[in-house]
This record gives sequence, structure tokens and C-alpha cells, in this order.
Amino acid sequence: MSTVNIVDRTCLPFQWQELAFEVNGHLEKVLDPSQGFPSNLLQAMRHGVLGPGKRLRPVLVVLASRVFHAKANPWPAASAVELVHAYSLIHDDLPAMDDDDLRRGRPTCHKLFGEAMAILAGDALLTLAFETLAKNYPSSISAPCCLELARGIGGAGMVGGQVQDLMWEGKIPSESPLGESLPGEQELERLHSRKTGALFQACLRMGYHVSQGQKTENSREDLLDLLDQYGQNIGLAFQVTDDLLDVEGNCQATGKRVGKDARKGKLTYPGLLGTERSKHLAGELCSRAKEIATQFGPGGLPFVELADFLATRDH
Amino acid sequence: MSTVNIVDRTCLPFQWQELAFEVNGHLEKVLDPSQGFPSNLLQAMRHGVLGPGKRLRPVLVVLASRVFHAKANPWPAASAVELVHAYSLIHDDLPAMDDDDLRRGRPTCHKLFGEAMAILAGDALLTLAFETLAKNYPSSISAPCCLELARGIGGAGMVGGQVQDLMWEGKIPSESPLGESLPGEQELERLHSRKTGALFQACLRMGYHVSQGQKTENSREDLLDLLDQYGQNIGLAFQVTDDLLDVEGNCQATGKRVGKDARKGKLTYPGLLGTERSKHLAGELCSRAKEIATQFGPGGLPFVELADFLATRDH
Repeated sequence: MSTVNIVDRTCLPFQWQELAFEVNGHLEKVLDPSQGFPSNLLQAMRHGVLGPGKRLRPVLVVLASRVFHAKANPWPAASAVELVHAYSLIHDDLPAMDDDDLRRGRPTCHKLFGEAMAILAGDALLTLAFETLAKNYPSSISAPCCLELARGIGGAGMVGGQVQDLMWEGKIPSESPLGESLPGEQELERLHSRKTGALFQACLRMGYHVSQGQKTENSREDLLDLLDQYGQNIGLAFQVTDDLLDVEGNCQATGKRVGKDARKGKLTYPGLLGTERSKHLAGELCSRAKEIATQFGPGGLPFVELADFLATRDH
Repeated sequence: MSTVNIVDRTCLPFQWQELAFEVNGHLEKVLDPSQGFPSNLLQAMRHGVLGPGKRLRPVLVVLASRVFHAKANPWPAASAVELVHAYSLIHDDLPAMDDDDLRRGRPTCHKLFGEAMAILAGDALLTLAFETLAKNYPSSISAPCCLELARGIGGAGMVGGQVQDLMWEGKIPSESPLGESLPGEQELERLHSRKTGALFQACLRMGYHVSQGQKTENSREDLLDLLDQYGQNIGLAFQVTDDLLDVEGNCQATGKRVGKDARKGKLTYPGLLGTERSKHLAGELCSRAKEIATQFGPGGLPFVELADFLATRDH
């Protein structure tokens, strides 16, 4: 079974690249063929996970764990969040949802393996994320990690955000048209706070739980609060820059079709605020995130670098 | 938001009926509108979960917990397995999979809410199952429950079985046609051991973990082994009788279209062995299950009743 195991080295901060490579090694182990999965299911799952990617979410887990405890083992948790991210992309790309044929420069899962397999590969990846947590940590770590992950990606988090997104796009009928029919900046922020920010926050919180909150001068509540604020800001910054790349990026760099948001009538930041105001907003969010990261202590530097990367990213 | 909250009282053993009603009450709480889900998503999730149903899997959790510890709280675990069961039905019914328009006597989720929402409602239910476990138990219980559940329903369990099922039906192309092209009784048993038996086993094991294995005369390994054997036997018996009902049942009693397996060219027990041999097999599996249940001790009686019910069920 061949895999593509590439992280784009061109723009990411140095430490980030190294960690992303390490994440890939752990993902390979989690998706090992010895687990008794039907071979074609495993192939579809591996296609969804092991393509090129920034590994943004798992690296957040790793860095957060290092802020609080140098010797923590963040890899199972880091792998779990990337499995979840891959599942969400596979399902989002389905014809009934965003109907995309290209992702990370390759055909989407349903294009290669058919719709039925793509749905099931997503389901299996989501399940494997929780199995990976429960299998590889003592209860005192796996239980809070399962809780954070489930909260971040469920109906009140990522999936809820996707529902709102599709509702405004007209693919899901709105139950109460008057209540949801006039989306503005606040609604768009709420949508992405669910769709992107909640998983970013969960990643950071999982990093905290993996380290069992050791070696820190702040109180537990203060820390979780700082992590949440950072997660919300970079989550939103990530989304604004993602929307901007769809307008201004090129297909080769982003690995997906550009201009598709506008064609689909999606609600986006450039569509709502215009390109210039969107760029300004992204810059503001990144500045806020950097300011928060300075309060993390000695392990906070990579978080500053990440905010800088997001402010200037081209893929 | 209206819900149908009915358990068919006609055939289930008495204690079963009471427990199934109690399960419904707990499912109502788990799907409470106060959780911050978009209202139309919650509506789709509630439609999938709160229709009429036997609540077979959650009742297995409750009974197993009572065999081992009278005072255990099995309800969050019982709710979690029904959420998972509902998610699997919603996704199985999708056009790309079994393409069913009727389930439990009502329109299927995608018929009412559209395909995109049905995919997302399934995703949210699967996630909510793990959240329900992680939120409502101490780590020492939730962690092993999450692990059992994930193992039972992932790529090596329920989802893997569904892949095999669709592969033999031709909806998923087989990767190695020679390896999988001549299914016999053994292959069908392996398929349903994954597709149905693995979740049944997980339910029983979760009941054990919820009770923290207290008040028992057998060793932990012996008990888990007995539960696994019982789960495999009734899981398979359930599937054989399900296949038989598709041939001989009527639409009103089963709440779904009959004869559809044959129309779709599905691999079934009556199709493979004929009706008479299938009935004989179901009887044998139930007898074996009853024999195992007698070794459970005083709490084992409902398990005997369940085996009797499965041997004679008409819905």
C-alpha cells in the first residue's frame, strides 16, 4: 500500500515542519494494516489521512503539551485530532455536501473509492480517533481528552458549524428562516467559532490534559482560558485566510480548486467584508493571538510563530 | 419539538419493556434542546433516535451491569449505544448505501431532512455517544467504555462489517476479487460477527465496566469471555432472524420494507441456506446463548428470556 507522506516545507516555521513529519510517522502507525480492517476500507482511510497537509491541529496538541510538561507523550492525542480532521474533510467533500473533487492536490475520497466507502471511511476515522485516545493513555488522561474532543467536534462544535454553513448556502433548509436569514459578521464569526475554532480549542486543551497540567505557574483555569482565547483567535484567523486564499490563491499552492466558495454562494469573509477588510481582520486576529501567546511562558514562542505564519500564509 | 416515544409492547419479555421505556427517558435527556446544537440538526438527531424501537442494545448494557453490580448506573452507557445504533441506521439508509426510505415505520432521516443533514446528524450522534460516556462517568469507567465502544463499532467491527456487506452487494468495489468473491456461510458469519455481534459484545462489556466488575463469583476474564460468547451468539441469531423477517415478515410489524434484501441481491442467511435451515440455525444459536446465560448467576434470567424472544420474534 503506497502512501504520500509529504509536508510542504516552504512556509512553515522550522520547528513546525519537524513536528509535522513526526506526526506523519505516528499516523502511519495508527493506520497500520494489522488491525483487522477490510483492506479497501483501510486504503480509503489512509488516502484521507496520509496525503500532504500542514498537520496544524496535531502540532497544536504537541506544542500545548510541551508548554506545560516537557516529558508528556502527545502523539496519540495529536494523531486523534488529525484523524478527526481527515474524517471531516472526507464527509465535507461528499456530493451531498460541498461536492469537491480535489483536496490537497489529489482526488477526494469519494472520487477514488465511491460515496458509500467515503461515508464509511469517515465514520471509521472518527471512531478510530476515540479508540486511539482510549487505548494509549491511562484513564485519567484519555477520559478528559475524549470529552474535549467530542465537545469540540459535535453538534455544538464542528458539525454544528458545518450545518450552519450548508444552511446559509441553501443545501440544508433552515428551520426558522427569519432567525437565520440575515447573516452578518457576528453570525459568520459564530459559525466559524463552531466549525474551526472549537476543534482548535479542543487540540490545545487536549495538549493540556496530556501533560496533566504540570510545570506551570498559572492556575489551571487561567491556563485553559488563555488556551481557549488563543484557539478562538487563530481558528478565526485561519478561516479568514482560508477564505482569502479561495479568492486570491492558486490551485497549485492550495491543492484545491479556488474560487469555488463564490461559485457556490458560500458566506465568506471576503464576500461579506471585502478583501481588504478581511486581510485587516486576519492581521488583527493574529496580533491578538500573539499577545495571548506571550503569556504562555517559555514554551509560547512556537505559538507566536504560528500566528505570524497564519497572517502571511499562501497555502 | 414533538417526539414519538413508543416501545412495541406485544412481544418483548416484561422486564425488557420496562427497561426500554426507561432508556427512552434517558435518551430524551441526552438529546435535550439546551445543548447549543442548531435546532434543525437536533431535530434530525431526535428523529433518528427517538422513534419506536426495541432498545435491544441499551437494555443489554443495563442487564449486564445488573448481573455484576445491582447499584451501578448504566444509563449513560445505555444511551450511548443507542445513539451509535441510530447513527449507523441513518448512514446505512443513505442513497449511496442501502437507499431506504422507510425505517421503524417512518420516513428515513435523509427523506425528511435531506442527505447533507442525514450525514451530519449521524456524525453528531456518533460523537455525542462518546461525549455522553466521557461526561457522565468517572475516568475509571468512561475510559474502558469508550475503548469497548470504539473497538466494537470501528473498522474492525460494525463499520468493517458494513463495508463487507456493501462489497458483496456490489456497491463497493472489492479490492481483491479472488479473495472475497465466493462468500459462504463462514464469510457471512464473519461479516455479521463484525456488523452486529461486535456492538452486542461491546454493550455487554460496557455493562461490565459500568459495574466495575463487582459482586461476582467468576474471575474477570471468565466473565468477559462468557459475555463475549453470549454476545456473538445472540448477535448472529438477531441477524439470521432479521434476514428471515425480510423474507417472511410483514411491513407493518417490522416497520420497514420487506423483501428488499433479495431485490438488492444482498447476501442473506435465507438466500444462502434456505428458510428452513436458517430457522434451524437461529434456534441453535439461541439455545447456545441460553446455555451460556445460565452461567451468569442470578442476574442471568433476562438473558435467557432475550434468547427465547429472538428465537420467536416477528418484528
